[in-house]
Amino acid sequence: MDQAIGYQIFSDNPDPTVGAPRVALLRAELARHGLDGFIIPRADEHQGEYVPARAERLKWLTGFGGSAGMAIVLKDKAAIFIDGRYTLQVRDQVDMNVFEPQHLVDEPATRWIGENLTHGARLGFDPWLHTAAAADRLRTACTKAGAELVPCTDNPVDAIWENQPGIPVGAVVPHPLSYAGEDHEEKLARIAEKLEADDVDAAILTQPDSIAWLFNIRGQDVSHTPLPLAFALMHAKGHAELFIDERKLSSETRKHLGNKVTLHAPGRLKEALDELGAAKREIRLDITSAADWIKQRLDSAGAIIKPGDDPCLLPKARKNDIEIEGMRTAHRRDGAAVTRFLAWLSREATSGTQSEISAAQALEAFRAETGALKDLSFDTISGSGPNGAIVHYRVTQATNRTLGPGDIYLVDSGAQYLDGTTDITRTVAIGEPAQTNDLKDVRDRFTRVLKGHIGLAMARFPKGTSGSQLDVLARNALWQAGLDFDHGTGHGVGSYLSVHEGPQRISKLPHNVSLDPGMVISNEPGFYKTGCYGIRIENLVAVTPPTDIDGGERPMMAFETLTLAPIDRTLIDPTLMDATERAWLNTYHARVLTELAPLLPPEDQAWLEQATRAL
Amino acid sequence: MDQAIGYQIFSDNPDPTVGAPRVALLRAELARHGLDGFIIPRADEHQGEYVPARAERLKWLTGFGGSAGMAIVLKDKAAIFIDGRYTLQVRDQVDMNVFEPQHLVDEPATRWIGENLTHGARLGFDPWLHTAAAADRLRTACTKAGAELVPCTDNPVDAIWENQPGIPVGAVVPHPLSYAGEDHEEKLARIAEKLEADDVDAAILTQPDSIAWLFNIRGQDVSHTPLPLAFALMHAKGHAELFIDERKLSSETRKHLGNKVTLHAPGRLKEALDELGAAKREIRLDITSAADWIKQRLDSAGAIIKPGDDPCLLPKARKNDIEIEGMRTAHRRDGAAVTRFLAWLSREATSGTQSEISAAQALEAFRAETGALKDLSFDTISGSGPNGAIVHYRVTQATNRTLGPGDIYLVDSGAQYLDGTTDITRTVAIGEPAQTNDLKDVRDRFTRVLKGHIGLAMARFPKGTSGSQLDVLARNALWQAGLDFDHGTGHGVGSYLSVHEGPQRISKLPHNVSLDPGMVISNEPGFYKTGCYGIRIENLVAVTPPTDIDGGERPMMAFETLTLAPIDRTLIDPTLMDATERAWLNTYHARVLTELAPLLPPEDQAWLEQATRAL
Repeated sequence: MDQAIGYQIFSDNPDPTVGAPRVALLRAELARHGLDGFIIPRADEHQGEYVPARAERLKWLTGFGGSAGMAIVLKDKAAIFIDGRYTLQVRDQVDMNVFEPQHLVDEPATRWIGENLTHGARLGFDPWLHTAAAADRLRTACTKAGAELVPCTDNPVDAIWENQPGIPVGAVVPHPLSYAGEDHEEKLARIAEKLEADDVDAAILTQPDSIAWLFNIRGQDVSHTPLPLAFALMHAKGHAELFIDERKLSSETRKHLGNKVTLHAPGRLKEALDELGAAKREIRLDITSAADWIKQRLDSAGAIIKPGDDPCLLPKARKNDIEIEGMRTAHRRDGAAVTRFLAWLSREATSGTQSEISAAQALEAFRAETGALKDLSFDTISGSGPNGAIVHYRVTQATNRTLGPGDIYLVDSGAQYLDGTTDITRTVAIGEPAQTNDLKDVRDRFTRVLKGHIGLAMARFPKGTSGSQLDVLARNALWQAGLDFDHGTGHGVGSYLSVHEGPQRISKLPHNVSLDPGMVISNEPGFYKTGCYGIRIENLVAVTPPTDIDGGERPMMAFETLTLAPIDRTLIDPTLMDATERAWLNTYHARVLTELAPLLPPEDQAWLEQATRAL
Repeated sequence: MDQAIGYQIFSDNPDPTVGAPRVALLRAELARHGLDGFIIPRADEHQGEYVPARAERLKWLTGFGGSAGMAIVLKDKAAIFIDGRYTLQVRDQVDMNVFEPQHLVDEPATRWIGENLTHGARLGFDPWLHTAAAADRLRTACTKAGAELVPCTDNPVDAIWENQPGIPVGAVVPHPLSYAGEDHEEKLARIAEKLEADDVDAAILTQPDSIAWLFNIRGQDVSHTPLPLAFALMHAKGHAELFIDERKLSSETRKHLGNKVTLHAPGRLKEALDELGAAKREIRLDITSAADWIKQRLDSAGAIIKPGDDPCLLPKARKNDIEIEGMRTAHRRDGAAVTRFLAWLSREATSGTQSEISAAQALEAFRAETGALKDLSFDTISGSGPNGAIVHYRVTQATNRTLGPGDIYLVDSGAQYLDGTTDITRTVAIGEPAQTNDLKDVRDRFTRVLKGHIGLAMARFPKGTSGSQLDVLARNALWQAGLDFDHGTGHGVGSYLSVHEGPQRISKLPHNVSLDPGMVISNEPGFYKTGCYGIRIENLVAVTPPTDIDGGERPMMAFETLTLAPIDRTLIDPTLMDATERAWLNTYHARVLTELAPLLPPEDQAWLEQATRAL
């Protein structure tokens, strides 16, 4: 991607008129194959958050550009399933006369299938684009309706899509040991040992971030995440097979992979699965992320499938000391860029000449000036006033607002650097906030969000504690006032990898994934007043090993805050904070000043001194 | 039980010598039936916490008197499985040459079976005394060991137990509508509707507290809980069958039950299950509480078992307004008795003439003086100094300590009244605490436990919140200091029923049972310094319906504290508390004074005024 143009686009050009003719083409294609319908998810063969242009079949067919969704086209009706984030957007982008909008969670596709499929109907699906677990649910729904779910390995959308982009062949490069912190042959040995202990012969790896981590490689097949799209087979004996397009591999990368890794063309995967089946091997497969095609192939070949988590998930999430040190360096660099942006914003944004888009571009420019920026880690959420209240807002030319005095402006952004991935949200007042009743409310909410952020940042907790146990610390001050926010409190973050990675998370939903030393996770409570403003304060934190506390009996873990940038003092009501909370903020701000000042030009240094003075 | 003697005994008389001869008798009996071993759990046919004397087979065989445990006797070895509470006690009560002690959780019986059963061995078990789910685990363990789990409906322990107590036939009385708040015919209709909606024909009810709740009856078959041991069959058509010993039923109770309830002898249950099977009925069965015998009988008769929660669990847990009002009345009455006890303790306990036992007896006497006491809700935990650090301590003549100045004394107790069940823990200093370093620590810990108690008491939370989400509020102040406690934070409490009832709970373990309006639950964080002292502060609270908060947007639920009794001010370090916490305590104490003073003699009123003055 051309750095001069930048890593994000702000055009949208919704064109709902594409739906009708393309659905007509699809129906004709389905008829040729004796199908009564077809399911089109927003997914590729790896079930990741970002998919290559070639896999944007849902967008091509319907016009819908959201990051999650699914359509089902039958002979005489069609539906599009989207979640709460996209209920408004879908009406601009999709022809509602062609596609009936449905709620992905409240009105799931399985229910719609039950209500709309006739007895004997044949509903097609591409088994490469659904996880094994999801395909099972669809199959059950079809069976209940007396219909049949028919696998189509030649996707009928591809047959009618003129000028469909090709398979991406982004160059794959070694991820140096100085960033990875552990040689990939050591990782292979470690995972092999785990498979051996779990009594399986091999594991199929289908998640590109697991593959990137395991082999210490990075790619460029999708935007915002340096993923090499590939599959792998990890043997309990310690040897691995990598199924990857050879065009992506330089001789340096081949050399890096070494003799513990055998390279195959992606098309060879089928045979490899058949061989495992013929040998009656016991295979670890993560059915919540692996494509149904893989499970069916293994099954019919005679392999014994042992469902279980992708064995790389936890080792990847538990960063080693070098990765954590890289994260610290990346966050200092990124924090300086964000601070320069915030200082710039305080100078420029009151004049009425800046907008959500120009601000996002400025922020990207400050990051690019570090000379280390490899990509943004996601499209910047740059929302002022009512746009800030849209949790997953993506600014376009159509929605762009000019920034002006009195606006509450929320900016959630992140960067990819070789040494780490960042993700930070700051909410700031543009200009001196006006002393109105509204401001009183905004300050009250901002301070409660901050109290939640601090409550989590200061948490100490014993080994084995999960993120769902700690979630209330981020919500308590809001709950006390009859307020809440409708998103998770924290997601895992990769090391120059996905900005959203599991398995750890901080959320209301019960789970028992413990927060282990080295895990990096976001701390991002918020508050959203629909139609008015949004508030979110997000830092990344790293889980520290258990340490003794003076006078205590049990070692406790803690969060080390990685993100460095000032939190807007003008939006804080200090009377709502207790002494411990004020002390945390003052200490944090002192650290921000100490660590970032040396990286800033004098003008921004002076601004930061003001922005970080004690409450 | 004779009220003059009281509802608790303090003798223990451990006699580990019973084990050897009784195990010899059992082995001979097993040989007669071609069995290689037998499992003896501490359980009756209903899997409740309290079992009738007849079902105390584990105690009779081994000498072990704890409230949970299991023994397995093989031809040449035997083991007793107990949890962490009983690792010391078991050595006093059980002959370690006969029974090898094992940890119930860390070294489960299933593992021991795998390690000790030989191929082809026949291990007997009484299918009435294990839940269906537990029996499945045992069966799997036996199968893996190449052995067989053999059901013995004639329990071999009964065959050798001379003078085994008979089946209890405590009188069953109607529980008046003025306490129950809902007519039992309405309850029958409500549960029937639920079964109809769940698409099952009937539910088997095996838990006596569910049966007591559903039919508005109370019994006296076990100690401390007014349970009528019985089984019931609830039909989705609205009719119920009650399988109960007729000797328990007066004509008044028969009349109360009315014509929606058919009475049968317990022995008729077998036929009823067979009839359900023959008619191919779909039956709701709670396999986590129903005896394996019932599941096997239904299965072999041809019924279609639909596993699921006992349908009375949630309706019973969600108390209606009259039950909550009864709880308030019971807690004022009980709080006055506890306060009289605490005042008495402050006068009497410094002289060296009182002990853990005499204090427990005095507390019971104050409760008996209310004229409303039906039973204690459990054996009083009355522990001073090191005994207070034993979480489930039960004082006996052997362990009894004299109370003296400087002691930290923990008393956890409760009562059964017609209008409600209580459960309260207070920790007090005997006399003026000495100003030592130890005291500084005790005050620090006491205040942190209190902060946790207050954090939970003040919580506001949205509909759908579970107790596992709130648990950290009770632990946070301890975790900050490197401290914790190893028990749950809160358990549900019945209305003149079990002092421990589900499904709601507050604990570290992830679960998604939401805290619903009307649920009563304990709030009991603690801290235990082994060998020195124990601290616990426990009130019962009721979940309130969601209410609007001034200036807020979403209605929030809360806890109404039911328990009324002063919290020892001399053990508090006010500098560790914030203004909100101090305000909570002062408001609570003011309420304790206002509500209880009118119920106290003048001398105790004066004491309470001192004990509740503002911090």
